[in-house]
Amino acid sequence: MSKSTFYDVQVQFGDCDPAGIVFFPNFSKWMDAASLHFFMANGVPPWRELIKTRGIVGTPLLEINTRFMVPATYGETLRIETTVEEWREKVFIQKHVVRRGDTVLCEGRETRAFVVHPPENPDRIKAIPVPEDIKALCA
Amino acid sequence: MSKSTFYDVQVQFGDCDPAGIVFFPNFSKWMDAASLHFFMANGVPPWRELIKTRGIVGTPLLEINTRFMVPATYGETLRIETTVEEWREKVFIQKHVVRRGDTVLCEGRETRAFVVHPPENPDRIKAIPVPEDIKALCA
Amino acid sequence: MSKSTFYDVQVQFGDCDPAGIVFFPNFSKWMDAASLHFFMANGVPPWRELIKTRGIVGTPLLEINTRFMVPATYGETLRIETTVEEWREKVFIQKHVVRRGDTVLCEGRETRAFVVHPPENPDRIKAIPVPEDIKALCA
Amino acid sequence: MSKSTFYDVQVQFGDCDPAGIVFFPNFSKWMDAASLHFFMANGVPPWRELIKTRGIVGTPLLEINTRFMVPATYGETLRIETTVEEWREKVFIQKHVVRRGDTVLCEGRETRAFVVHPPENPDRIKAIPVPEDIKALCA
Repeated sequence: MSKSTFYDVQVQFGDCDPAGIVFFPNFSKWMDAASLHFFMANGVPPWRELIKTRGIVGTPLLEINTRFMVPATYGETLRIETTVEEWREKVFIQKHVVRRGDTVLCEGRETRAFVVHPPENPDRIKAIPVPEDIKALCA
Repeated sequence: MSKSTFYDVQVQFGDCDPAGIVFFPNFSKWMDAASLHFFMANGVPPWRELIKTRGIVGTPLLEINTRFMVPATYGETLRIETTVEEWREKVFIQKHVVRRGDTVLCEGRETRAFVVHPPENPDRIKAIPVPEDIKALCA
Repeated sequence: MSKSTFYDVQVQFGDCDPAGIVFFPNFSKWMDAASLHFFMANGVPPWRELIKTRGIVGTPLLEINTRFMVPATYGETLRIETTVEEWREKVFIQKHVVRRGDTVLCEGRETRAFVVHPPENPDRIKAIPVPEDIKALCA
Repeated sequence: MSKSTFYDVQVQFGDCDPAGIVFFPNFSKWMDAASLHFFMANGVPPWRELIKTRGIVGTPLLEINTRFMVPATYGETLRIETTVEEWREKVFIQKHVVRRGDTVLCEGRETRAFVVHPPENPDRIKAIPVPEDIKALCA
């Protein structure tokens, strides 16, 4: 397990679709923001710093699994609770629970890896082992 | 199983993130477009017609599961192959395979339901059994 | 002139493009949210209420003019100051100034109209005179 | 003046808002794609090549002016005609006309500049004179 962080989102008109509810890929966008917020709130610098100091480009997704329980609409404020459920050698599982007040709207799990641009092929990205110091900051 | 349909996407600059690759929620957006295209290519009217004739608002997501294998970038054309893997009583599983040429970039499964606004509560949405005639069109 | 309102935006990773800066249409999206926030902060109900009580669908754009002075990136918090510069009979000019701290990043003017679905053609939208009571709330 | 290029867009469900019409910032996103398409169709390499060969990061916006005449909705195909109206020393004015069939839906002018990361400050961007060879390709 890990620390928990919280990230708030104000739903905008432009986040909603012709059915009047949040267009579902926006939940993935917000979970991604919550994922980065998790690391920054735990003391990890933003990716644009880490790419310079350590070559780390970010933590792209290998897989996502999201369940949508209750819709949301514009004008509402949502709160996302983020944890790391599991640290493996090269990947980690991040969990996000989106709530409006006490109501759980949406729950997602992301499988992510820390990646670098390999020197022999700077256009590509390659997973590296989860950095121990980052793991320690978040534990 | 079902018929297969194909939906092409041209990746735009604005679909890509600071890592220079498609920001992953866009794959969900495109799969959603491929889902609607699947029904329309099989002869089902767009939701804005169905809401008037039959009260059907659309097929919102209950769950998504997406695996990201190879990134894409702007200027590329992707092709999404869409099928229905399984029709259950009130939900169906739609599968999308995103390819660039022969390379599979991303694969997703969506659990969706046909929904209406229940007359007693027109602000909410409620799943209905999968309409047999729509199922027949797509089989 | 009118009252001023303020609307804060946290820039997300997914709001930024391969150049690492906010993809410019997001400024329009945020100004749109600031526009709605302006009305709601001044006591006007959200559009989804107004459509039921008065048939008002919203305030779609007729024209936008936006100048981009300084870029922004993810992890930053921006503040948008919104006013109505001019109320005409059927349109109004809304002005948004986006700042990071004291630095003006972007400035936009929107020409908007209040619209309804005309009963004789419910699929279309039609401008109505700016409602006097809404104008009074915002003055 | 310049050559004209054409860029087609299929409007997706997720491009539309609770009013059922295209959320207006998407027109800016598509014009941006049409802008890049203009250069690539005229033989200019994509920005991710130009940054390596000549340090050119892209052509960010200094100003946009867009008029919205007729709304569009999902399932429709739009065609954007793009030209350069004026080449100045350090900026150029690109014009986009969005049509559905013969109907003009939206018209936009963008003021853009070619930019590089200045060596003394690689985190910033700086306008350079419009490259003569690129201008010649597009004339």
